[in-house]
Amino acid sequence: METAYLNGSFLPKQDIKISPDDRGFLFGDGIYEVMKWYAGFFYDPQGHLERLRRSMREIRIDWSQSGDFLAVSRELIRANSLDNEHALIYLQVTRGTAPRNHAFPEPAVEPTVYAFARKAGGFKDDPGPAVPVLLTKDIRWSRCDIKSIALLANTISFQNAHEKGMKECIFVRDGFITEGSRSNIFLVADNIIYTYPQSDYILSGITRKNIIRYAGEAGLEVREEPFPETRIHTLQEAFFCNSSSELTPVSSFGDVKIGSGSAGQVTMKIYEQFRADLASLKG
Amino acid sequence: METAYLNGSFLPKQDIKISPDDRGFLFGDGIYEVMKWYAGFFYDPQGHLERLRRSMREIRIDWSQSGDFLAVSRELIRANSLDNEHALIYLQVTRGTAPRNHAFPEPAVEPTVYAFARKAGGFKDDPGPAVPVLLTKDIRWSRCDIKSIALLANTISFQNAHEKGMKECIFVRDGFITEGSRSNIFLVADNIIYTYPQSDYILSGITRKNIIRYAGEAGLEVREEPFPETRIHTLQEAFFCNSSSELTPVSSFGDVKIGSGSAGQVTMKIYEQFRADLASLKG
Repeated sequence: METAYLNGSFLPKQDIKISPDDRGFLFGDGIYEVMKWYAGFFYDPQGHLERLRRSMREIRIDWSQSGDFLAVSRELIRANSLDNEHALIYLQVTRGTAPRNHAFPEPAVEPTVYAFARKAGGFKDDPGPAVPVLLTKDIRWSRCDIKSIALLANTISFQNAHEKGMKECIFVRDGFITEGSRSNIFLVADNIIYTYPQSDYILSGITRKNIIRYAGEAGLEVREEPFPETRIHTLQEAFFCNSSSELTPVSSFGDVKIGSGSAGQVTMKIYEQFRADLASLKG
Repeated sequence: METAYLNGSFLPKQDIKISPDDRGFLFGDGIYEVMKWYAGFFYDPQGHLERLRRSMREIRIDWSQSGDFLAVSRELIRANSLDNEHALIYLQVTRGTAPRNHAFPEPAVEPTVYAFARKAGGFKDDPGPAVPVLLTKDIRWSRCDIKSIALLANTISFQNAHEKGMKECIFVRDGFITEGSRSNIFLVADNIIYTYPQSDYILSGITRKNIIRYAGEAGLEVREEPFPETRIHTLQEAFFCNSSSELTPVSSFGDVKIGSGSAGQVTMKIYEQFRADLASLKG
């Protein structure tokens, strides 16, 4: 039986129910985190906790027990017998339950905190085959830096790519490639690695942040600069990344093919650095 | 005891619970409608039904019983003894319940349909005092034509206005005034009424549509054209509108005052036409 978490309690997941007056359900008024467990440790838990707190601060939700994030996550791993497995923790915090009104509840109500664990794949021997992605207009809001649950733009954009047999959709805003519907993206041209700068237009990904570090450790040049869509034909390599599936090489943006169909040299250097970091974290 | 509706059943509202795997809760993956009951009849029910179906079509949610919308609404009025009251029907449809994944569930699952009725004010003797509104950057997505429940941008923008003592926030996109966080807006300059054209950047409001008709009936000129923020100091009148509170005159946009503090001549002409329409609908 799967155990999940709701507002301080660990419960059989099937027993967990949400009020229809929850502002998560009525307004998408909440934020979330996804963090990976590598059969013994969480990847950058402090990074996830800080981002969780930042997201809450930006939309002014106060989960005063946010310091419990890691303990809750650890207990979900234990209760679901995932200690020696790879797994993902999903945790979301909404503004809580109150009669429907755009204004925040006055006085404030307790936030709804919901979390579950799910088995996942581990770090693979190699990044696997490169995959096609769809380039699509970024129809999302302009506060993509907030890891909000109001993800309708993401789901319908991703579905569109999915039905075309593509593994991700990559957004283009104002002519520049920003990020994916559930990932950040890195682009390699002239042996320089480009990724959209931290700003309102992308989520500051935990894996993104660490990949920038790995690239530096591998002696590679990273520029956090907007990369124009018009230059995608000049790309040598590209990959997207997120917490759940690490790093995935890209074989094409729509009709524009890139590289040889598997991870290129730059991608591989970063991948090996990632692997080494995980090995050192495993200790 | 309040009676609400969930997936074909009328239930005590307190007994209604939602799965935490509902895509409304996890992704804001759903749409909604708000329709007014004027102590005996719904206002433009066909308009609401058509818009409900359009929203579902645009995000590809299939509530095959959408034709029940009006019957469900009517029964909520009856069951809550609101027949002779003014009331609002709120109805939302989400993509249903499935393990969290950006892609739509395959095979498709039944949508979640939730609705309730709530007592509301009626059509007032006059539009009431003009109110201040906040002009604010439109941070929403670029498919505001879809009446989506992913409303975080709206709630945090509205709250910002609310805390400044203002009754609505009015969005500005690319230098033009688009609409409010929960309303459409009409602006009067040189005796011409401006409102943002039907497009991806505004919701096609039912009240908006009818106000355009009322204006025509009153011999007033309406232009569905973007109105630049830089010209707000030229405004003679302004008002916002929605299904729940009809028409509200605006006294100021931020620091820029408009008119005399109550509804202007153009606003009043439209208001009287609105009143006459309601009287004729009452029959």
